[in-house]
Amino acid sequence: MVSASPAAVPNEFEYLLRLGDDRLVLGHRLSEWCGHAPILEEDIALANIALDLIGQANLLLGLAARIERKGRDADALAYLRDAIDYRNALLVEMPKGDFAVTIVRQLLYSVFALLQAEALQRSTDADVAGIAAKAVKELRYHVRHSADWVLKLGGGTTESRARAQRAVDDLWPYTGELFLADDVDRAVAQTGIGVDPSPLESSWQSTVRDVLGRAGLTIPDSAYMQRGGRQGRHTEHLGHMLAEMQIVARSHPGASW
Amino acid sequence: MVSASPAAVPNEFEYLLRLGDDRLVLGHRLSEWCGHAPILEEDIALANIALDLIGQANLLLGLAARIERKGRDADALAYLRDAIDYRNALLVEMPKGDFAVTIVRQLLYSVFALLQAEALQRSTDADVAGIAAKAVKELRYHVRHSADWVLKLGGGTTESRARAQRAVDDLWPYTGELFLADDVDRAVAQTGIGVDPSPLESSWQSTVRDVLGRAGLTIPDSAYMQRGGRQGRHTEHLGHMLAEMQIVARSHPGASW
Repeated sequence: MVSASPAAVPNEFEYLLRLGDDRLVLGHRLSEWCGHAPILEEDIALANIALDLIGQANLLLGLAARIERKGRDADALAYLRDAIDYRNALLVEMPKGDFAVTIVRQLLYSVFALLQAEALQRSTDADVAGIAAKAVKELRYHVRHSADWVLKLGGGTTESRARAQRAVDDLWPYTGELFLADDVDRAVAQTGIGVDPSPLESSWQSTVRDVLGRAGLTIPDSAYMQRGGRQGRHTEHLGHMLAEMQIVARSHPGASW
Repeated sequence: MVSASPAAVPNEFEYLLRLGDDRLVLGHRLSEWCGHAPILEEDIALANIALDLIGQANLLLGLAARIERKGRDADALAYLRDAIDYRNALLVEMPKGDFAVTIVRQLLYSVFALLQAEALQRSTDADVAGIAAKAVKELRYHVRHSADWVLKLGGGTTESRARAQRAVDDLWPYTGELFLADDVDRAVAQTGIGVDPSPLESSWQSTVRDVLGRAGLTIPDSAYMQRGGRQGRHTEHLGHMLAEMQIVARSHPGASW
């Protein structure tokens, strides 16, 4: 049951796109490793995490589509929107990079997504609460898996630590956006459907700093943070990724053959 | 516990490569759809099937590596062998083609693999029996999923039926090899470790002909069958696929950075 009043719908729709698009885009970035991870076990682990995220995205975008009531479904939202209509944070659209970039990003995002999903289990929208409850179990594993790997890379060879440090340096400026709240976030937080991300930041900082510290990695000093994804201002990387992701669906509209 | 006598090891090693390579190669072919299926649900379903197969391959190649006792592990077998050392049937190395090719091949292979795994549950090698028991559950789903889709494609539009028929015509000549037994098969069947594939053919024929018949698809008359994969004589498609699959592992030997 959707408990939002009709007036609240645009905000909830926007909010669900943010939740869904983060997961769809990151799931796709991870799936770019399919068959290319240097270890069979890790190929399987990354693909499982990708599947979890794409599964969560499918549920969230399906719910967004039902709320929108314009006849679109989850596939239409995934495959027929242009980059400007995507609402993911910039962090998740960065290219997959090397394995260190993929793993460090996964830690930074998963810790955030877990805190967010834990809070969303108490959503006043029963559909959102149900999706969040399922996601919490999956995200706990994602946090553990990525933290284990960050510790291994940081405590590994000179090369592995250097790569992990470079990944932290490059990705850190994209973490601030995760916790920026705007009118949409405040509106859904007020009705209890969604969660204002700002108060999640201190928990996130403490978990992430703990893992990176134990891995011997340092956090860059610069306070400058990138932003814009939540409002549709994306890097060129998202456009390239969507072109790749959407080509089959767009060349077979409705997959109707 | 490995119950083979030392003398039986080369045959069991060869046999496990056949089992493992079928799954590794087909799993990789399916993973080429990652993020490219025209429907989110189907993207997830194909990726799940790919993961099942790569997981089975990982177990089978791990067991092969332990039996070989040359210090190689599953990753070395997957990433450091050349095409000529692969033992998969030619059917699974054919390019993924369009969705109809992927789905028809999945039906043809899954019905075979399920019959094989059901029989292997009674292997005298407890490791093989255990892997087979887990695989049976997964393969039942693969058969159901691909049969459902074959029925949809056959009963769909003129275009979808034409594509499915073309897939059957193109793939059929690669099915005979699945049931060809040689000395390796007969040796492992005699010790009870493995299964002679020849007697599985009549069950396979009856299931596959039933599904294709209900889908309105016909089986080509030609009795000519391709062969060679089990002995390492592969098409150029396998070489291209392995180049793609192995590049990351080979450029980071031991993934040691």
